Amino acid sequence: MEEFKITFLPEHKSVSIDKGTDLLTAALKTGIHIYNSCGGEGVCGRCKVIVKKGDYATEDSGRVADLEREKGYVLACRTTPKSDMEVLVPEESLLGDLEILTEEVKAKRLAGLYTPVEEIEEEQYSAISKVFKHGPLSTKLFLKLPKPTIDDNCGDSDRLLREIRKYHKEITIMQMGLSNIKRLPQLLRDSNWEVTVTLGNRNRTTEVVLIEPGDRSNRNFGVAIDIGTTTIVAYLVDLNSQKVLGSKASYNPQVDFGEDVISRIIFAQHEKGLEKLHHAVIDTVNTLIGSLIKEVKLTLDDVTSVILAGNTTMTHLVLKIDPTQIRKDPYIPAVNFMPVIRASEVGIKINPRGLLACLPSIGSYVGGDIVAGVLAAGMDKTKDLSLFIDLGTNGEVVFGNKEWLMACSTSAGPCFEGGGLKCGIRAMKGAIQNISIKNGSLEIGTIGNLPPKGICGSGIVDIISELLKNKIIDRSGKIKKNNICEVRDSGGLKEVVLINEKDSATANAIIIDENDIKNLIHSKGAIYTGIEVLLKETGFKKSDIKHVFIAGGLGTALNIRSAINIGLLPDLAEKNFVFLGNTSVSGAKMCLLSSEAMDKAESIANKMTYLDLSANASFMNNYSAALFLPHTDIELFPSVKKLL
Amino acid sequence: MEEFKITFLPEHKSVSIDKGTDLLTAALKTGIHIYNSCGGEGVCGRCKVIVKKGDYATEDSGRVADLEREKGYVLACRTTPKSDMEVLVPEESLLGDLEILTEEVKAKRLAGLYTPVEEIEEEQYSAISKVFKHGPLSTKLFLKLPKPTIDDNCGDSDRLLREIRKYHKEITIMQMGLSNIKRLPQLLRDSNWEVTVTLGNRNRTTEVVLIEPGDRSNRNFGVAIDIGTTTIVAYLVDLNSQKVLGSKASYNPQVDFGEDVISRIIFAQHEKGLEKLHHAVIDTVNTLIGSLIKEVKLTLDDVTSVILAGNTTMTHLVLKIDPTQIRKDPYIPAVNFMPVIRASEVGIKINPRGLLACLPSIGSYVGGDIVAGVLAAGMDKTKDLSLFIDLGTNGEVVFGNKEWLMACSTSAGPCFEGGGLKCGIRAMKGAIQNISIKNGSLEIGTIGNLPPKGICGSGIVDIISELLKNKIIDRSGKIKKNNICEVRDSGGLKEVVLINEKDSATANAIIIDENDIKNLIHSKGAIYTGIEVLLKETGFKKSDIKHVFIAGGLGTALNIRSAINIGLLPDLAEKNFVFLGNTSVSGAKMCLLSSEAMDKAESIANKMTYLDLSANASFMNNYSAALFLPHTDIELFPSVKKLL
Repeated sequence: MEEFKITFLPEHKSVSIDKGTDLLTAALKTGIHIYNSCGGEGVCGRCKVIVKKGDYATEDSGRVADLEREKGYVLACRTTPKSDMEVLVPEESLLGDLEILTEEVKAKRLAGLYTPVEEIEEEQYSAISKVFKHGPLSTKLFLKLPKPTIDDNCGDSDRLLREIRKYHKEITIMQMGLSNIKRLPQLLRDSNWEVTVTLGNRNRTTEVVLIEPGDRSNRNFGVAIDIGTTTIVAYLVDLNSQKVLGSKASYNPQVDFGEDVISRIIFAQHEKGLEKLHHAVIDTVNTLIGSLIKEVKLTLDDVTSVILAGNTTMTHLVLKIDPTQIRKDPYIPAVNFMPVIRASEVGIKINPRGLLACLPSIGSYVGGDIVAGVLAAGMDKTKDLSLFIDLGTNGEVVFGNKEWLMACSTSAGPCFEGGGLKCGIRAMKGAIQNISIKNGSLEIGTIGNLPPKGICGSGIVDIISELLKNKIIDRSGKIKKNNICEVRDSGGLKEVVLINEKDSATANAIIIDENDIKNLIHSKGAIYTGIEVLLKETGFKKSDIKHVFIAGGLGTALNIRSAINIGLLPDLAEKNFVFLGNTSVSGAKMCLLSSEAMDKAESIANKMTYLDLSANASFMNNYSAALFLPHTDIELFPSVKKLL
Repeated sequence: MEEFKITFLPEHKSVSIDKGTDLLTAALKTGIHIYNSCGGEGVCGRCKVIVKKGDYATEDSGRVADLEREKGYVLACRTTPKSDMEVLVPEESLLGDLEILTEEVKAKRLAGLYTPVEEIEEEQYSAISKVFKHGPLSTKLFLKLPKPTIDDNCGDSDRLLREIRKYHKEITIMQMGLSNIKRLPQLLRDSNWEVTVTLGNRNRTTEVVLIEPGDRSNRNFGVAIDIGTTTIVAYLVDLNSQKVLGSKASYNPQVDFGEDVISRIIFAQHEKGLEKLHHAVIDTVNTLIGSLIKEVKLTLDDVTSVILAGNTTMTHLVLKIDPTQIRKDPYIPAVNFMPVIRASEVGIKINPRGLLACLPSIGSYVGGDIVAGVLAAGMDKTKDLSLFIDLGTNGEVVFGNKEWLMACSTSAGPCFEGGGLKCGIRAMKGAIQNISIKNGSLEIGTIGNLPPKGICGSGIVDIISELLKNKIIDRSGKIKKNNICEVRDSGGLKEVVLINEKDSATANAIIIDENDIKNLIHSKGAIYTGIEVLLKETGFKKSDIKHVFIAGGLGTALNIRSAINIGLLPDLAEKNFVFLGNTSVSGAKMCLLSSEAMDKAESIANKMTYLDLSANASFMNNYSAALFLPHTDIELFPSVKKLL
C-alpha cells in the first residue's frame, strides 16, 4: 500500500500513513488530539483542518462553508492523502493537550469539576456522615485469634470466620476464596494468630477480601471516582475516618475517540475500538489513583476498594462491556445494576484483591452519575418536590421526591461545554466565562483574566441573555443592527462581533452568529422541554417545584438570571436554585463510605422511572414551542416578560 | 555430579541418576511404582528391592532382616548407587501398574470400591430420592425472555435476573460475574431472547454460572467423586433425572509418593511436592471424568458441577492447600467447611465455569468422606444409636444418632489394606481373600481363583480368626506347633506357612509370622478401642448399639464372624451389621443432587464432635487391654468365649 507523509502544523509533527487513512486518524497517531463529536463519521463538522500543501481526496459533508473551502478547510475525518501533505490544525479544532500544561493551568481548566479537599471536609463530610451510618465498601478488622488446641481444633479458615462473626453478628453469608484459604495456615502461624481481615460488601454477602499479618486496621483506603464523558475526578478517602485525603481530576482521554457518548459507542464498534476506549479510561483512573496515594505516602495495597459513578456508556466502557445496544432502538444497556467485582478484573490497580462497585444506572441515558447526584442532593429524603438538572452534552433531568422519581435525558448538544459554536471552547484559560452589557458597552470576564480565546458554556448563556435584553437579537434569535456591538455579514449569515481580531488571543474575531444562536436555542429548548415533559407526565406545575439542584462542572459558573432569561431554567425565584458542583463524585463517595447509602442508591435506581423522550409525543410538541427566547409562550417566564 | 545407570528388573527399565539419588526416586522416574507408606523416610520397610549388580551405599534402618540382607535386600529409599546397578523389584514391593492391566483386571481389582450403575439404579436411587428434595448443585432453566421495548427497558442482565426470579421466588441473593454480563447483549439477541441459564448453589447464594443460547435444559450433568487415599471413584450423574449414567474407579496415583496420608503430608513439604501430589490426583480426576462422558457421548461443557468427598488430607491436596499442619500438634486443617468454587480453579476440566463443592470435614483425621458416609447411612435420621466404621489405613469410627454424633480416628495401620505384613498385598488378582480350616485342613479362596500371591485385608482377618479358633495361635498371638499348618522358625520368629513355595504364584511361601500377628492385633485393637472410647465418652454400652454400618472397600469382603472373633468388631448379633460399600461416593452423589442433602451434610459436620485420641487418656488404657485376641477381658466377647 502506498504511504504518504503527513506533517501537522503549527507543531510540525509528522507521520506516515497508508493512502486510505484519513487525516483524523493520522493526527491521533502523532498525538495531536482533534475535536470530533461524531466518532469520525463526518457529521459533527468539528474536525476542520486547513490543507497547506499536497493532494487529497475529500468528501463534502455540507459541514464546510464555501468560503472555508476556498481557504483549504476540509474535515480531517473525511480526507485522505494522494501525496505527502502539510496540514494546519487551527486552534479551535485542537483539543488541549494536557501533557504540556502546567499544574496551575490544569487546575484552572478542571476548576469546578471537583471540590478541593478543604471544602469537602467542611461542607460535605459532616453533613453526609450525619445522614448515613458509617459502613464502608471494605472494612478492616484486627483479630487476635484464640490459638488452636486439641479441644478447640476447628480449621484455620473456620476459626477465622468464627472470630469475625463475634464482631459482626449481623453477617448472614460470609465468603472466602481459595487463594486466601491457601495462604492461611502459614500466615496465621507466622503472625502469631494476630491478623487484620478486610471484609468487603459484595452483593449482600460479606467477603473476606484480604488477610494481612498484624494490625493493619488503620490502613484502609478507598477511591470514589466520577467517570465523566469529558472529565474524570477521583477522591481518595480514609475509610476509617471518612476523611477525603486528596482529590484529582483529569480529562477523559476517550475524548480522542469521540466527544460524546454516541460517537464513542460508534467508535467501540471499530476494530479494537472497545479495547482502546477501555484502556484509555482505565489508564487515567490508574494514573489518578497512583498520584493520589503518592501524595499521602500510601501504597496500592492500602487501597481496598474503588467505587465508580458514570453515565451508562462510561460505566460500560470502564467495564469493557460492549455498549452497542445503548444507541440502538429500544436503547438497552447490558447492565444497570452491576454486581461488585474485583477491581483487578477490569485492570484497575489497587490491592489485587480490592473491590470495585458501580453506582447503578436507570437506563441507557440516565446513569449512575445521576443516581449519585440524586443521592447527594438528598432529593429522596423529603416530600418537597425538587428538580435535579445535570447540564452537559447530555442534559439529564430528574423530578420527584422521596416517594417517586422520574428522569429523562435530552440531547442538549455540546453548547454548554463550548461545543457546536463557531467560537465555542471549553472552560479553559482565556475562555469568556461571563459577559454583560453595561452602559452600552460589553464587559467581558475570561478565565484567568487572559486575552480571550473563545466562549465557554456559561459565557454563551450570558451573551444570549444580554443580547436579548438589549434587543440586539429578537426572541427568535435574529440579529439586528444596534449601537452596542458590531454586526456584520459572513457568507450570508449575520454575526455579532464580541471581540475583534486585534483584541483576540487567536487573532481571529470572536463572534456569535445566527447559527450559533440557533444551536443554543435548540440546546436550552431540549433541557427546558425535558423539565416541562416531566412536569406534565407527573401532573405538576412549575410552581410546585421547591428546589432546583444544578449539578455538573458548568453549574458553578452559570448565571441563574441569564439562564432563566434565555429560557434554559424555569422562571423561579433565584433562592430556589442550588449549585451542587460534581454530585457524581460526592454521591459515589457517600456509597463508598456507607452501605446504607449504597442501598439507598439502589432504591433510588429502582424507584426512578426512566422516560424515553425519543418516544414521547408531547416532547416534540413542547420542544418546538421552546425554540424561542425565552419561549413561544412568554407567559411561562413572567420575570423575563417584565425585563423585556 | 557423577551419574549412574540403574536398571530395574525384571522389566529392564533403565534410568540415569545422580550419585546422591536414592533407588526409590530412580524407580519412580522409570515409571516403576514401589510401595512406600512413609514417604521415603526409611520407616515403613515396604520398598525392599534386591541388588543384583553394582556398588551402593545403604542405611540400616532395622527393616531388613539379616537373612534378607544376605540375599541383597535393601530399602530402595535408603540406598544410593556408587556404580551402575541392576536392581530386582520383587513383586510384593511392586505397586500394580494400572496402565498395563486389562479392563477386566482393573475392574476386579477395583471391585467393591464402587457399585455398578445397575445396582445403584435399583438400590440407591429410589431410596435416596425419597429422602431429600431434588435440588442439584447446578440447575438448568430454559427462559423465553420478554423482548425489551421502550417501556420495558431494563438492562439485559437485570432482565435475565428478573426472569429467573419468576421461577425461583425463593432465591434471596443472585450473583452474576462480569464475563457473563459481557457476553449477554450479543448472546440474547443472537438467540432471539431464548436462553438456558445454569444456576449454581454457591454458599447460600445463587450464581448465574452459565448462559447458553436456546434450550439446553436437558443437558445438565454432574460428577460425584470419592477421593480415597488409595482409590478414586467417580459417578457421572444426570442432574435432571437423578440417574447415574456411569461409574469408574482408578488408583490414586499419589500412592507413588507415599501410601498413607502421613507420608503424603511429608512428601508435600518436599520441593514441588504439593504440586506433584495435586497434579497426580487432578489428572486422574480429569481422566475419569473424560472417560465417563465419552461413554455416554457428552462434552465437558455439559458437566456443570463436581462434588468431592475425601478425607481431610485428600481434600487439601485436591485443592492444592498445604496440609502440613494436619500432622502437627494440635492437628489443624486449613479448612473444614470449604466454600463452593469454580472447578477450573483447581484444574478440574468440566465446563470452564462449572462449580466444585467439597463435603465438609470434621477435623484433621475425620474428613468429608466420613460426613458423606454418615449421611448415606442415614445415622442422623433416627434416635437409634448406631456405629459407623470406615475400615482403612485410617479407621474412622462415628457413634451417635439424630441428636448427636461423636467421631474419632485411629491409626489402624495398613493391615486391612494388606500393608504392614510380610506377605500382605492389596485386594488384587491372586490375593487370598478368605480362608477357613475345615476338617483339619486349610481352604483358601483367592481373587479370580488364581494361584495365591499374598494375603489381602479380609484374608488376614479370616486367617487370624481361624488360627485362633483352631488354637494354632493363642490369645496373645503366639504361634504353636499343630497338626494343620506347618510352623517354622525364620530368624528367631515363628511363622505359619499358609502356602508353600511350589503352590505360590511368587515362588515364595506365603506365611504369617508373629510380627504380622502383632501388627494385626495392634490394628484391630486401635479400631476396637476407638469404639470403646466413644461408648465410654458418651456413657453408653455396647448393647445400646442398634446398627453397625461398615463402609470402605474392605467392607464387602469382610467376614463379620471372623472380625468379631479377633476382636475387631464388637460382639453383636450379625443382623446388626450392615455393609454399605463406598458411602463416600454415594453420600457425595446425594449432595450433588440435593442442596437439602448438602445442608444436612453441613449440619452433620457441625453437630459431630471430633475426639482426638492422641490426647485421650482412656484410649491408651483401653488400647493396651485390647492387644489380645479377642481382648484381655474375654467377657466382652461372650460368643467368642463360647467358641474357644
